[in-house]
Amino acid sequence: MEIKWDERGLLPAIVQDAQSGAVLMLAYMNEEALRLTLETGEAHFWSRSRNELWHKGATSGNVQRVRDVRVDCDVDTILLKVDPAGPACHTGEYSCFYRTLTDE
Amino acid sequence: MEIKWDERGLLPAIVQDAQSGAVLMLAYMNEEALRLTLETGEAHFWSRSRNELWHKGATSGNVQRVRDVRVDCDVDTILLKVDPAGPACHTGEYSCFYRTLTDE
Repeated sequence: MEIKWDERGLLPAIVQDAQSGAVLMLAYMNEEALRLTLETGEAHFWSRSRNELWHKGATSGNVQRVRDVRVDCDVDTILLKVDPAGPACHTGEYSCFYRTLTDE
Repeated sequence: MEIKWDERGLLPAIVQDAQSGAVLMLAYMNEEALRLTLETGEAHFWSRSRNELWHKGATSGNVQRVRDVRVDCDVDTILLKVDPAGPACHTGEYSCFYRTLTDE
C-alpha cells in the first residue's frame, strides 16, 4: 500500500486506547517514525515543535504498546490502537482531549 | 479558548462514533466549518481536494449528528463524537480505517 505523505513528509496519526476505545491524542509521523513504530512495537512520532524524532514515553515511561496499525481509505492518516503504560497527555491527563470546546 | 489554526487556516478533526467508540474518519475544518458544525449540530468540514466547504452527508444522506466537540491540550485538534446516519467512508465502509497497514 502506497502511503501518501504530505508535502512535509508527515502523516497525522490518531492514537486510540485498544481496550477502552478512547481517543488519546493526535501526533505526526514521518517515514522513520512509522518504521520504528513497526520495528519496536512502541509508538514513535515526529515532533513538529522540537523538529525531532520522538519515542513516546522515552522520558516519562508512558510508552504506548502498539496493538494494531490501521490506515484510512486515502492512505493519508494512520490509526494506532495501543495499550498505554500511563497518561497520553503531557498535562498528566489520560487523554489529550480532556476539554470540551466550550470549557474556559 | 484560543484555537490554533494551522498556516492554511485548518485543523484536523477526528470523528468518533459516540456509541461504539470507533474512529470513523479524519477530516479538516476551517473556521466556517467549525461554526456551521456548532450552529447546525451536524458535521461540516473543509475539503482540501475540492477546496470547498463540505456538509458531510449533504449528498449521501449520511450526516453525522454531533454529540460532543472536544479539543486537545494544544487546542490544535478537534475530536467530534457523533451519531452517524450511515457509513462514514465514501467506499461504503462504516469507518474509513477498514484496512490494516499490511493489507494489499
